[in-house]
Amino acid sequence: MPRTLKEIAQVVSGDVTGDANAVITGVAGIEDAQEGDITFLANPKYQAFLPRTRATAVIVGRDVRDAAGKTLLRVDNPSLAFTRVVSFIHPQDMRHPSGVHAAAVVSPGAALGRNVGIGACAVVEEGCRIGDNTVIYPNCFIGRNAVIGSNTIIYSNVSVREDVRIGNNVIIHAGTVVGSDGFGFVTVDGTHHKIPQTGTVVIEDDVEIGANCAIDRARFDKTVIGKGTKLDNMVHIAHNVVTGKNCLIVAQVGISGSTTIGDNVILAGQVGVVGHVTIGNNTIVMAKSGISKNVPENSVFYGVPAQPVNEAKKLHAYVNSLPKMHQALKDLKERVAKLETKL
Amino acid sequence: MPRTLKEIAQVVSGDVTGDANAVITGVAGIEDAQEGDITFLANPKYQAFLPRTRATAVIVGRDVRDAAGKTLLRVDNPSLAFTRVVSFIHPQDMRHPSGVHAAAVVSPGAALGRNVGIGACAVVEEGCRIGDNTVIYPNCFIGRNAVIGSNTIIYSNVSVREDVRIGNNVIIHAGTVVGSDGFGFVTVDGTHHKIPQTGTVVIEDDVEIGANCAIDRARFDKTVIGKGTKLDNMVHIAHNVVTGKNCLIVAQVGISGSTTIGDNVILAGQVGVVGHVTIGNNTIVMAKSGISKNVPENSVFYGVPAQPVNEAKKLHAYVNSLPKMHQALKDLKERVAKLETKL
Amino acid sequence: MPRTLKEIAQVVSGDVTGDANAVITGVAGIEDAQEGDITFLANPKYQAFLPRTRATAVIVGRDVRDAAGKTLLRVDNPSLAFTRVVSFIHPQDMRHPSGVHAAAVVSPGAALGRNVGIGACAVVEEGCRIGDNTVIYPNCFIGRNAVIGSNTIIYSNVSVREDVRIGNNVIIHAGTVVGSDGFGFVTVDGTHHKIPQTGTVVIEDDVEIGANCAIDRARFDKTVIGKGTKLDNMVHIAHNVVTGKNCLIVAQVGISGSTTIGDNVILAGQVGVVGHVTIGNNTIVMAKSGISKNVPENSVFYGVPAQPVNEAKKLHAYVNSLPKMHQALKDLKERVAKLETKL
Repeated sequence: MPRTLKEIAQVVSGDVTGDANAVITGVAGIEDAQEGDITFLANPKYQAFLPRTRATAVIVGRDVRDAAGKTLLRVDNPSLAFTRVVSFIHPQDMRHPSGVHAAAVVSPGAALGRNVGIGACAVVEEGCRIGDNTVIYPNCFIGRNAVIGSNTIIYSNVSVREDVRIGNNVIIHAGTVVGSDGFGFVTVDGTHHKIPQTGTVVIEDDVEIGANCAIDRARFDKTVIGKGTKLDNMVHIAHNVVTGKNCLIVAQVGISGSTTIGDNVILAGQVGVVGHVTIGNNTIVMAKSGISKNVPENSVFYGVPAQPVNEAKKLHAYVNSLPKMHQALKDLKERVAKLETKL
Repeated sequence: MPRTLKEIAQVVSGDVTGDANAVITGVAGIEDAQEGDITFLANPKYQAFLPRTRATAVIVGRDVRDAAGKTLLRVDNPSLAFTRVVSFIHPQDMRHPSGVHAAAVVSPGAALGRNVGIGACAVVEEGCRIGDNTVIYPNCFIGRNAVIGSNTIIYSNVSVREDVRIGNNVIIHAGTVVGSDGFGFVTVDGTHHKIPQTGTVVIEDDVEIGANCAIDRARFDKTVIGKGTKLDNMVHIAHNVVTGKNCLIVAQVGISGSTTIGDNVILAGQVGVVGHVTIGNNTIVMAKSGISKNVPENSVFYGVPAQPVNEAKKLHAYVNSLPKMHQALKDLKERVAKLETKL
Repeated sequence: MPRTLKEIAQVVSGDVTGDANAVITGVAGIEDAQEGDITFLANPKYQAFLPRTRATAVIVGRDVRDAAGKTLLRVDNPSLAFTRVVSFIHPQDMRHPSGVHAAAVVSPGAALGRNVGIGACAVVEEGCRIGDNTVIYPNCFIGRNAVIGSNTIIYSNVSVREDVRIGNNVIIHAGTVVGSDGFGFVTVDGTHHKIPQTGTVVIEDDVEIGANCAIDRARFDKTVIGKGTKLDNMVHIAHNVVTGKNCLIVAQVGISGSTTIGDNVILAGQVGVVGHVTIGNNTIVMAKSGISKNVPENSVFYGVPAQPVNEAKKLHAYVNSLPKMHQALKDLKERVAKLETKL
């Protein structure tokens, strides 16, 4: 919903420097912001972005002096103010399915909270518990005894297998599968015998999961997606993986069985992680990398197999200099041959 | 439907050199064709493929003299003739769902064209408009106000979110998701706040999208798949991506947000493309490559990060020669040591 | 179901060395086993794992002398005994949908065996044949004339296109698509004309397919997944691919059109294979590799493009030694310069 900067300033008790009648239509980070957006500058070390942002207005701390020609909204706490502004400009849009559709198939043995929306042809099996204000879109399947919290949105054609637990304020995009069997076999004389996967999956609060992901249930115990972690589309999470809180796992990443991911980890697009390793807190793995062993916290890794990014880039530069090295070696051979002739 | 070469010749006003009673059961490119196929030779530069093709007959221009022992069908315009032959041999097979199934759930507020087929348990929400002769298979979800053109086929378990626009003659294979939220967050004090994705997706005419793909809606504005572009299975298209016309995007490719792809671009299997870059017209990116910056038009790129293919292959050859270089360096050291001893 | 070791010993006619009252709750391979698991040692060459396993008990041959402090269950044939123990500890759990749900949409022209379970909102079209004891979960689509064997489980939101054939004892996880069109076009003057994909898919007995996979139908003839082969999540199988028996194809692998995979092949996570090649029996391709040509049997390949793993690792070591080589070259240049000065 478009808002004037003046309206926004009232909500966050801020002061406008510049055009208070400017109309704000969206929110974005300082680098991605376009005209019409409001953004924020929480950390003075990003001050350099201020003159370059295309945002119509920037929320800053009261100590920021130089407006760099930008319209500013000065507040006590820019981060906190920004989160308020997000929900002020984009109030929750309630056009999701509401009520239980006549063509939904909800077991009488399922317990629904208040104001639950269940779309047509969604199937909710017995023993399920679904919290207040949660929405389940058409054609979903919610298996026996699954528990889903409050204020959660599950888009169409999602499959949630039996016994899975999903928290509050979770968003699961269409086509995703939660609780499929882990990939576990014991091979006897060439035949692969299935190891029953008797564990489950726990999706903690505030998680968002993209479209067409697959999150396998644990062999024993549970596969966990930690609070506030966000998965992009087509992410594969194998059995017994545990991710920490507030991770960003970008599209087409695959994490193999029993691997543990710390808090605030970023795995960029198409990264693969082997099984039974640990990635430390705050670590970033760059796109297309392959993690083959434990990665310490606070590091940046790159490559296949992944190395610390500085080493990977140094080696990459050496590879790029191979034609020069090859030529240098050739030149040197000739000089040595001449010396040998002289002696 | 099997056809004799004589029947085909009549449809395209062509002349047969060879067995006019040969039975043709399929169509294919000149390299892939098998016995029973008809293929075509539009460009004389591919003449070398003529003797090697396994096709039963080849459509060629009237100027082609050397039959190379093959059965030829000479026509004025081989390309045009071939497209006519494709639909003559494979006339549209009308075994798709027809009519609105009694178990479909179509909102009274949706507008259906003539001869629309909607399968059982498909859900079409209010405000949708669906063009003539379009088919929606069972268990699809078509969200509020989505617009779908004519002669389009949407296979089972596809999810089309609200407001998405899909053109004419489009094919979307089973399990695909169109219009899921883009992956966009603003991180404030470690917590990822969702940036509402208020744009949409536009699928232009003649597009084909494989199974289990995900095409995200734009943050603002629209994500676009250009006219005639074909996506294989499990392709990920992030928010605000715009692809040109007649691209081929092979299986498991991922394209990050706000990237622009030109016309006639080929992205081979498992390619990844970072966000906010441009790939020029007619460019080919080879399998498994990672595109990390803009790519000019008419180029062929390969590697992670991708380079022009000739440079990539040259460097690869140097890497393969490393054992030799290592040995050469060792030999040289010995020769220098001898020289030093002598002096 | 937890069992004492004594109960297990009776089933396999074995003798316990150690605590026969130990309670076993699961099965696993010797390296992955945890407390409460039973595992097995079939091949004496894995004897070294015995002291290290965390399993509560180990099934061994009668010739194993050294218990290494472990509780053993001695039997005539450890492999055979182990497979019996798997089904003894995890008897088939019959909580799947049973009977045809009132909200399922089964064509009167479909033939169901005895004891078939079909969930709510599953759609089974005319001409389908479904074998005894097979279970189809809610919201699946089974297209016209598809044939599904006995004792097969198809989880929710799976799409099986027309004419596909699926064997006995098959498991297909949620969201998977079997029988989508292959990605085949003939490009005429820049426009991609669809090549009709008139073949089918055959899934042989004892196959397991993960969540959100896509297996394309053949252009002609058939795409085949061989008996006993297991696919993890999000695997892409293109048209006319034929896999052998007892392969393990790990998550996010993509196999391009008309490629043939031998028996007992392992393709690790995120591997890509080009079209029209053959991978020999018993070969292992390591994670993230790209196969660009035929691979002989009994080999281990790694890299992009993939090479025999020993060569790939050797080259990788050379690349890692590039900084040293660079320094050695520099030192040598200085020594040669000195020699030149002296002469």
